[in-house]
Amino acid sequence: MSIKSEGRGLYIGRFQPPHLGHIYTLKNILKEVNEVIIGIGSAQISHTFDNPFTAGERILMLKAALEDEGIDMSKVYLIPIPDIEMNYVWVRYVTLLVPPFSVVYTNNPLVKRLFIEAGFKVKTPPLFNREVYSGKIIRQRMINGEPWEHLVPKAVVKIIYEINGVERLREITKSDEVRC
Amino acid sequence: MSIKSEGRGLYIGRFQPPHLGHIYTLKNILKEVNEVIIGIGSAQISHTFDNPFTAGERILMLKAALEDEGIDMSKVYLIPIPDIEMNYVWVRYVTLLVPPFSVVYTNNPLVKRLFIEAGFKVKTPPLFNREVYSGKIIRQRMINGEPWEHLVPKAVVKIIYEINGVERLREITKSDEVRC
Amino acid sequence: MSIKSEGRGLYIGRFQPPHLGHIYTLKNILKEVNEVIIGIGSAQISHTFDNPFTAGERILMLKAALEDEGIDMSKVYLIPIPDIEMNYVWVRYVTLLVPPFSVVYTNNPLVKRLFIEAGFKVKTPPLFNREVYSGKIIRQRMINGEPWEHLVPKAVVKIIYEINGVERLREITKSDEVRC
Amino acid sequence: MSIKSEGRGLYIGRFQPPHLGHIYTLKNILKEVNEVIIGIGSAQISHTFDNPFTAGERILMLKAALEDEGIDMSKVYLIPIPDIEMNYVWVRYVTLLVPPFSVVYTNNPLVKRLFIEAGFKVKTPPLFNREVYSGKIIRQRMINGEPWEHLVPKAVVKIIYEINGVERLREITKSDEVRC
Amino acid sequence: MSIKSEGRGLYIGRFQPPHLGHIYTLKNILKEVNEVIIGIGSAQISHTFDNPFTAGERILMLKAALEDEGIDMSKVYLIPIPDIEMNYVWVRYVTLLVPPFSVVYTNNPLVKRLFIEAGFKVKTPPLFNREVYSGKIIRQRMINGEPWEHLVPKAVVKIIYEINGVERLREITKSDEVRC
Amino acid sequence: MSIKSEGRGLYIGRFQPPHLGHIYTLKNILKEVNEVIIGIGSAQISHTFDNPFTAGERILMLKAALEDEGIDMSKVYLIPIPDIEMNYVWVRYVTLLVPPFSVVYTNNPLVKRLFIEAGFKVKTPPLFNREVYSGKIIRQRMINGEPWEHLVPKAVVKIIYEINGVERLREITKSDEVRC
Repeated sequence: MSIKSEGRGLYIGRFQPPHLGHIYTLKNILKEVNEVIIGIGSAQISHTFDNPFTAGERILMLKAALEDEGIDMSKVYLIPIPDIEMNYVWVRYVTLLVPPFSVVYTNNPLVKRLFIEAGFKVKTPPLFNREVYSGKIIRQRMINGEPWEHLVPKAVVKIIYEINGVERLREITKSDEVRC
Repeated sequence: MSIKSEGRGLYIGRFQPPHLGHIYTLKNILKEVNEVIIGIGSAQISHTFDNPFTAGERILMLKAALEDEGIDMSKVYLIPIPDIEMNYVWVRYVTLLVPPFSVVYTNNPLVKRLFIEAGFKVKTPPLFNREVYSGKIIRQRMINGEPWEHLVPKAVVKIIYEINGVERLREITKSDEVRC
Repeated sequence: MSIKSEGRGLYIGRFQPPHLGHIYTLKNILKEVNEVIIGIGSAQISHTFDNPFTAGERILMLKAALEDEGIDMSKVYLIPIPDIEMNYVWVRYVTLLVPPFSVVYTNNPLVKRLFIEAGFKVKTPPLFNREVYSGKIIRQRMINGEPWEHLVPKAVVKIIYEINGVERLREITKSDEVRC
Repeated sequence: MSIKSEGRGLYIGRFQPPHLGHIYTLKNILKEVNEVIIGIGSAQISHTFDNPFTAGERILMLKAALEDEGIDMSKVYLIPIPDIEMNYVWVRYVTLLVPPFSVVYTNNPLVKRLFIEAGFKVKTPPLFNREVYSGKIIRQRMINGEPWEHLVPKAVVKIIYEINGVERLREITKSDEVRC
Repeated sequence: MSIKSEGRGLYIGRFQPPHLGHIYTLKNILKEVNEVIIGIGSAQISHTFDNPFTAGERILMLKAALEDEGIDMSKVYLIPIPDIEMNYVWVRYVTLLVPPFSVVYTNNPLVKRLFIEAGFKVKTPPLFNREVYSGKIIRQRMINGEPWEHLVPKAVVKIIYEINGVERLREITKSDEVRC
Repeated sequence: MSIKSEGRGLYIGRFQPPHLGHIYTLKNILKEVNEVIIGIGSAQISHTFDNPFTAGERILMLKAALEDEGIDMSKVYLIPIPDIEMNYVWVRYVTLLVPPFSVVYTNNPLVKRLFIEAGFKVKTPPLFNREVYSGKIIRQRMINGEPWEHLVPKAVVKIIYEINGVERLREITKSDEVRC
């Protein structure tokens, strides 16, 4: 291994929770690069509708799901990225926390723009049925009591059950209904 | 020049981007005071719909536009003001970053209220056709592909072209449409 | 008095402003515990629609209202709690700033969930006509020019008059209507 | 009670731990004002040599010691003040968190200067044998195994024993001796 | 894999740089637990005497050194931990960012104390010739031009050479000598 | 004027206070570039020994001194730069707040290193009798009651007198002598 960035890709997301679309993309990325850095965004946030799970829980979910896929974990970095409220500075801040990389994989237009302005090579991986495999849709299904388990790797379902994740999501999103 | 605040006015805005309404107001202010401090608010923010341009870009735009108007730049201070999330403390924080001043010019009710509560003299400059000369409307026109250049000083148009500002604004506001 | 937490309860709210529902709840709490810690949340925020009053003003309002009720202030702690933007860490952060306690009183589902996950005993006090006794409804009435004084302790009404609180609330909520 | 600041004094310290010098000063202050606000500085810090005790512990210690002196706690506010790293803004920030006051009591030259520059009336209370009644000296005695209990109110001694405060102080100050 | 914390240990350090003492300890830890979480402290800091290397560089160094030792990287988590300036809250904050664990390994008295107060099981691993294997001593040797390479894993030496780490350390520590 | 960075230089310092060495360097810089951006570091700090003056005061001092030298202020930007506690990110953060520039002038080894690592062209201007023209030495002379006025531009002396700067410096540095 070397400090050289060649052959290492960065994939950034919030993974609330990791779903089959993420796994599909990660497997495609690993066909193109030797190592992938998974940056777990909004790492300091949890217990909100947009970010119900902690960074530690998301690391655990991703590792379990990738191992179930037979992916060699020595090629994967799982790195929490707390928010910094300055878009222009954010790319540099990310490169402080992760090893060097030569290409960024993202479908988020803002993330894409920020890395391109900072001089990085950015690729847009094909999306896997994006109307369905979406963290927001999955969280909404959990709240509504609709099935969500088929959209998520089995190992992630198991962890969400163990931490009572659906119950947590439902309770914390009730807050707006009560006076304060 | 003196540490005395007399004859120095403060004008605070976000200038996203500077438009002809701002220039109109600044020229009126300079009829009343010898020097004007332009405080550029939300200075740490960029690459969002509300704040697409960096503080550095906004400083450049304002200087270019004021010089085109023949304004003596030795009478103008251009000072970025990063946000501080405490309204009650904000006025004091502004006075930390800028030279002393004897009057504040603002049309923003919150800014007006905060400076009045802190004991400052506040003037409300007449607005120049506010239905049209508004940063929000100009940004929306950029996104919609409608003409916006006539609402903004020529020097600002030139800089926005050079930095591909319209393209930036369109790309970063696409983010909500994509799953994460 | 002892470092022991037994007999001490925590009641957290934003108290924008304190209303008769809060007083009703506090009197009920003091039937169950010897001492009550009143945690004043979002303590660093003021001059917004959601949080118009400063922590200092809210402390003053609560003390005046409780004394009018004949409550022994040596059994009451009034402690401002500035926000920390990490839900998972927030409970620990609260216990840094306040004396030890054995039970938490709250009607907020998120607060309840966070304290339960952290291993605390949580009680949900009965709400006193929640359609009416709500900070948000009271603030909206102030803006609309509707009567609000009957929803709030007399001492709180007096302080809000003295600080021109209604005028403040109306002015700061005008901000969205003006261009910037 | 009123929003008026008359008759209310502010006394700011870190109280690591509260000692007999603090009590002496507080009793003198209460001869001059009706109410005293005790601002507990560096409230977010604990478990260091300079600040071994949490804000919650210091509130408990001060309340216990003042009650033992027979002081009416309805005249005392105990308010944690987390640090803000801007001296020029600090006074305004303090007034955000505490009720209004008309006079500040302090022996710290920086605190004195900051409040005077902000336009407040400042009094310097007489010190009670300052070579002995000093938080730093007391903490050093704890570490050295020398007697310290006679310098501190009995109620504070009791709480420090209950929380194993001396052991805590000794352990956390060993950190510099170990490699990392 | 499971959300259960059993069999997972946490080892926290700053690793400036990782040295043979760290590797010795990590190999011992992996005899006792199935998985080890390496928490890289002061992750946001770099380019100072105490913290010359970025978190990204330290992750790379640790991974390279552990792979050279034949350690299975699927059993190792490498997680940057930015500082939070509240000791009392720090343990909770760490558990936000990392997967659950059942035991903490540390030789730092403050870290030990904080985890014990928070209810965790803490072990003190035997130190491997601590007069020599110390980040501070190694950094001082680099500055002095003394040999340091024998104290550090070969893979770490290689990375420090590639990033001109010794030159960086020497230059940034010259700052105190120059006026400003 | 253009968004192009050519012909614009950046000079960063803390200017506590601006002295004749700074003026000498600024005049030399303006022989090489058309415009100079003066970045005023540690802008949020004041009322300490290292940083006694506010950013607003330092802006005023620099403007007055440069105007006395006959420098065209339309070629000078005076921009406060609050600290960000991440060296690796700091250069990017500076470029957020200031207009684009093509060369950096600095004598500080850390600043030099950080800009070089970020890919900027850095020049080291010749120092003007650095044993004497040093902010630290000037501040120490103020405290000691020794002459300092000959080391500082006349306009700066005048402002320091007006704000009672020497008295401020002496008082705030007395803090360590008093117990707390």
